[in-house]
Amino acid sequence: MGNSFGRIFRISTFGESHGLGLGVIIEGCPAGLPIDEDFIREEMQRRKPGQSKITTQRKEEDEFQILSGVFEGKSTGTPIGLVIMNTDQKSKDYSHIADKFRPSHADFTYFEKYGIRDYRGGGRSSARETAARVAAGAIAKLFLTHYGITVQAFVSQVGDLKLGKSYQELDLAKTEDNIVRCPDPETADRMIELIDQVRKDRDTIGGIVSCVVKGTPVGLGEPVFDRLHADMGKAMLSINAVKGFEYGSGFEGVKMRGSQHNDAFYQEGNRVRTRTNHSGGIQGGISNGEDIYFNVAFKPVATIMQDQESVSESGESVVVSGKGRHDPCVVPRAVPIVEAMAALVLADHLLISRTNKL
Amino acid sequence: MGNSFGRIFRISTFGESHGLGLGVIIEGCPAGLPIDEDFIREEMQRRKPGQSKITTQRKEEDEFQILSGVFEGKSTGTPIGLVIMNTDQKSKDYSHIADKFRPSHADFTYFEKYGIRDYRGGGRSSARETAARVAAGAIAKLFLTHYGITVQAFVSQVGDLKLGKSYQELDLAKTEDNIVRCPDPETADRMIELIDQVRKDRDTIGGIVSCVVKGTPVGLGEPVFDRLHADMGKAMLSINAVKGFEYGSGFEGVKMRGSQHNDAFYQEGNRVRTRTNHSGGIQGGISNGEDIYFNVAFKPVATIMQDQESVSESGESVVVSGKGRHDPCVVPRAVPIVEAMAALVLADHLLISRTNKL
Amino acid sequence: MGNSFGRIFRISTFGESHGLGLGVIIEGCPAGLPIDEDFIREEMQRRKPGQSKITTQRKEEDEFQILSGVFEGKSTGTPIGLVIMNTDQKSKDYSHIADKFRPSHADFTYFEKYGIRDYRGGGRSSARETAARVAAGAIAKLFLTHYGITVQAFVSQVGDLKLGKSYQELDLAKTEDNIVRCPDPETADRMIELIDQVRKDRDTIGGIVSCVVKGTPVGLGEPVFDRLHADMGKAMLSINAVKGFEYGSGFEGVKMRGSQHNDAFYQEGNRVRTRTNHSGGIQGGISNGEDIYFNVAFKPVATIMQDQESVSESGESVVVSGKGRHDPCVVPRAVPIVEAMAALVLADHLLISRTNKL
Amino acid sequence: MGNSFGRIFRISTFGESHGLGLGVIIEGCPAGLPIDEDFIREEMQRRKPGQSKITTQRKEEDEFQILSGVFEGKSTGTPIGLVIMNTDQKSKDYSHIADKFRPSHADFTYFEKYGIRDYRGGGRSSARETAARVAAGAIAKLFLTHYGITVQAFVSQVGDLKLGKSYQELDLAKTEDNIVRCPDPETADRMIELIDQVRKDRDTIGGIVSCVVKGTPVGLGEPVFDRLHADMGKAMLSINAVKGFEYGSGFEGVKMRGSQHNDAFYQEGNRVRTRTNHSGGIQGGISNGEDIYFNVAFKPVATIMQDQESVSESGESVVVSGKGRHDPCVVPRAVPIVEAMAALVLADHLLISRTNKL
Repeated sequence: MGNSFGRIFRISTFGESHGLGLGVIIEGCPAGLPIDEDFIREEMQRRKPGQSKITTQRKEEDEFQILSGVFEGKSTGTPIGLVIMNTDQKSKDYSHIADKFRPSHADFTYFEKYGIRDYRGGGRSSARETAARVAAGAIAKLFLTHYGITVQAFVSQVGDLKLGKSYQELDLAKTEDNIVRCPDPETADRMIELIDQVRKDRDTIGGIVSCVVKGTPVGLGEPVFDRLHADMGKAMLSINAVKGFEYGSGFEGVKMRGSQHNDAFYQEGNRVRTRTNHSGGIQGGISNGEDIYFNVAFKPVATIMQDQESVSESGESVVVSGKGRHDPCVVPRAVPIVEAMAALVLADHLLISRTNKL
Repeated sequence: MGNSFGRIFRISTFGESHGLGLGVIIEGCPAGLPIDEDFIREEMQRRKPGQSKITTQRKEEDEFQILSGVFEGKSTGTPIGLVIMNTDQKSKDYSHIADKFRPSHADFTYFEKYGIRDYRGGGRSSARETAARVAAGAIAKLFLTHYGITVQAFVSQVGDLKLGKSYQELDLAKTEDNIVRCPDPETADRMIELIDQVRKDRDTIGGIVSCVVKGTPVGLGEPVFDRLHADMGKAMLSINAVKGFEYGSGFEGVKMRGSQHNDAFYQEGNRVRTRTNHSGGIQGGISNGEDIYFNVAFKPVATIMQDQESVSESGESVVVSGKGRHDPCVVPRAVPIVEAMAALVLADHLLISRTNKL
Repeated sequence: MGNSFGRIFRISTFGESHGLGLGVIIEGCPAGLPIDEDFIREEMQRRKPGQSKITTQRKEEDEFQILSGVFEGKSTGTPIGLVIMNTDQKSKDYSHIADKFRPSHADFTYFEKYGIRDYRGGGRSSARETAARVAAGAIAKLFLTHYGITVQAFVSQVGDLKLGKSYQELDLAKTEDNIVRCPDPETADRMIELIDQVRKDRDTIGGIVSCVVKGTPVGLGEPVFDRLHADMGKAMLSINAVKGFEYGSGFEGVKMRGSQHNDAFYQEGNRVRTRTNHSGGIQGGISNGEDIYFNVAFKPVATIMQDQESVSESGESVVVSGKGRHDPCVVPRAVPIVEAMAALVLADHLLISRTNKL
Repeated sequence: MGNSFGRIFRISTFGESHGLGLGVIIEGCPAGLPIDEDFIREEMQRRKPGQSKITTQRKEEDEFQILSGVFEGKSTGTPIGLVIMNTDQKSKDYSHIADKFRPSHADFTYFEKYGIRDYRGGGRSSARETAARVAAGAIAKLFLTHYGITVQAFVSQVGDLKLGKSYQELDLAKTEDNIVRCPDPETADRMIELIDQVRKDRDTIGGIVSCVVKGTPVGLGEPVFDRLHADMGKAMLSINAVKGFEYGSGFEGVKMRGSQHNDAFYQEGNRVRTRTNHSGGIQGGISNGEDIYFNVAFKPVATIMQDQESVSESGESVVVSGKGRHDPCVVPRAVPIVEAMAALVLADHLLISRTNKL
């Protein structure tokens, strides 16, 4: 249990960091959708390690194969099976951590939960699993594009370096212009500098990814439990290293008064609009047609290049030493993952909403 | 879809604010659990309107009946059907808002989604639905108590008035000593004063509920999607008026470096412990045996006693006037709701975890 | 687990034979459907005990209340909560079987599974639970009627007394004209006579209910696992006392050759039709627009008016004596239950099929 | 939707007959189970085409790879990803049926449902998909073996040639001794002869597979909907070409009287046993510890070597000609598929039953 996400547009992922391969089954993608493999490849490039000096220098081949569900370039309505082989899965030596629990990793909890664990590169708990999510998310994006819905994420904070502008003040098209994926060039430079410094300190740092969804129709979300933002929150909290989620006014909204926070309705042509959007495009758990926006908090990566106190499987005190290559800050590479998960949530709700009325 | 929560210990709720009644089916409660109806009643009292001067003065009878699933005081393993009749559901006049969309309520989105809505008191989108959750959560708590797990929530912020102490510095047993449910008496007084002022201003204000879970065994949580904190986050985000969720170091954690944030392991007798707990008791999505703690952000209540701009179902500009009784701040009554949802998540994961090993 | 059925149009039932009440939550009924309570009542009358001399003379009040999900006579898209109170649940004395396992009942298996059981009238395993199914099925039927789909069941066998005609040779409108619900008057008379004899013998007998669905569009069914007939089969096998299910050519079809069994296609106006219908209206698990038909085998009721060998909870040899009132043959009252479950399967698949194409 | 089966021990399959490959994700296999790849291979050999003169002479390579979820020979509790590449998927010419609907195949229904179909070899509707089920079922069998549960199927009827003995009168160990998989040597010979004659007639014929499960503990099955036999029935009806399912006394049981049919209880040492077993090991939907047995009816294979009337996608009358290689009777190769699906149902219920009691 726990390896599937969604109800109609539903993904199931499998695979460990250093097994033979990983992959995903995408169920419920409606038939007739052109599947652009180049687009999937581009999305996966955005997540790929080694893409810049501020990401891990580890190399992974993310060549994928679609084994099923696509015929003559289009989805057929049957499950899309997609695999990514781990070409160099046997190349590394993990004996130094084979029986040690790395602090703030999942080594200890997996071991206790299952009584056995694949210690190589974190096994199933490795962020390598997110490659499959990005591939699936790319297909969800293709589906959403068909309905005019766009999902765009960007880095809005690294450490205490905040992008002090709302998304409306930014040109989000510039997000991919720099390696940290912050649409404000000046802030981007400072973020890159900070991450580079952290890397030199053999340390890591956290950050925030913000995301904006435009073009959502009114009516997505299934109260009372499967509210659109509840599913979105779960999707985000399921990403490695995420510690928090807020949408619309979020945690800042608690300081406001109702008279300030309420979004007045007005009519604009055929559409009911809101004057402000503290609701973040979702009211009562259902999209209202305004922009959906939310923030996702990522902790500093647990792998650091420093000695740390820990214990072994047999309960002895040990030192875990930093070794290998790692991301000093996860948020630049998390941008496409956040988008992928958001797209999957929206695709699923878009399909479910077809069943609401007679 | 969307009215059930959980997989094994699973609830399905039904009912509108002003229909004949509401209720919940609790599936998967293991057989043999003593069902203490008095305890359920006490929990529901904590959520009940009209309990103090800082909550709505509306009166609701929350008398429940357990129709099934309990025999001679114990759960039988069959579904527990619990109903709460709405004794005075016809008493009010809602014609003044029957065709108007109240700002930041779910009136507009329900109407667009379904093409029809029960406008009386918000219908299904009313927080009255949470009465059923609290009843079900009480049963989940009884189950958790059997395994030594406790769930305790409290108010940690109202408006910009923050309780400036961590939960370890507080005596959580004092939470119920005051009407705002803040365990620090001095802060509680100031919060009560602030809410009372807001009420006099015919306005509302937001707040934060914090929650601590103690006694969780190692191993709850089903990565990669059903991580314990992802399900917890979804549970919280499914509560009316919630705008954000964070656990452990949360949004503040993004400012930290890995070397500060990582929780070193050490052995304490038979148990592996962590020196710090920035992980919030969950690593890799699985409980590690330390305290689980998290924060839930609530926006200011949308019902205010002021005139507001809006539109009608037919698209005309209208004024929505404040009328009736409402909560100036939702967090005091949200405390038992947060606990209920947390208990439901934990009960479900506790049962699922029985299937992890051979 | 196990008390819900369906994915979109989904029911969850609760309630024991002699608890305070039973009921059902119906989720996913599309908004805007007129809910005709009289029709629900009529359907429940068809299932009701005491309706004729060949059914149990037990009296049950099946007065239901719809607590939610319906507003001004129409479904609102929110869950429909329906309860049926057990008005006389305390009237009987069950002490004579309180610790004995009645042969071929569920007493022993429930006791072993849960360690506790409500022995009054079979508790949850009583066919009384099907009252909730019939109520929910009536709503599913209203939904299907909106799309021109009809579901009609009838008794085709009692003991070794077979209705020797195919459904095409019968006037199914005559089904309700007699108390055994067999559309052939002459066979009906013989069936009634047989059941009456069995009753006088203080014994019981099995039978077969056949069902025909007309007007199904092409495309219902979700291979590879949720084939339309697989879900239909599960639905039927979930009814008390059912031992077998077959559709189309069924068990007889195994004797045929492919050249006889294959249904040739031909064009009729805009429609692709089949010359024969051994497929039973379902090919590859998906409806093909032809009539769907299937048979459901019911064993003889386990409650007989005779002494039987058994053991007690403590493992001692005991005699279970026949007592009380019971059905000598279950099939006349099973007809509306079969229809209800069939309607629920079809309603669910009709909604799911909306998500198949772009 | 429709490509997953099970709740805890859950499989999701993907793949078409002539795509790049097919496979399965197995979720919820408990950690610590030794995964014997040779056993999986043996099971797949039993399903493989070309194994004897009475099966199709088509060649398929069924070499599988386990990509994840197994470490050092044992399951880790994470999803087991298993792929089977289609090595010769481009070798055939399907242009002769590309736009024709083969009678009693799924060509027409898939085309109408999805608006597009992979016509090569039947695409997703091909029985090739069952290779993935057999692989997954082999792992379920390994799990069951750990608990002493065995699943054994055999051919009990071909055409009107019935094996006139109950399973207790047979030595099921002899099932694999002949190519038709009937444990009675003499009947087996006659069945082989019949199938061979049918093959020479360029025709096909149906048959019945029977299955016996031994060693099941008391308590598997989740009433009221997920009764053990209801899930078993659905599993069987989800197999290609299946038209019916019956368990215990089945369709014959309808002719019996309750006094004959009821299974008297008696005590045998610590165990409660039944004198007869018309219940088929399941009472009230829950296993009672006796042998579970059931029959599965398979129609004659739709592919025949004869000309047949049909229509094309554009609605024109066409003739579909027999071509290629096919099974004259599917039941010999269906034996391992029936066992696989049965094992999956039991594994799932075994895990769920761990959550029944406190």
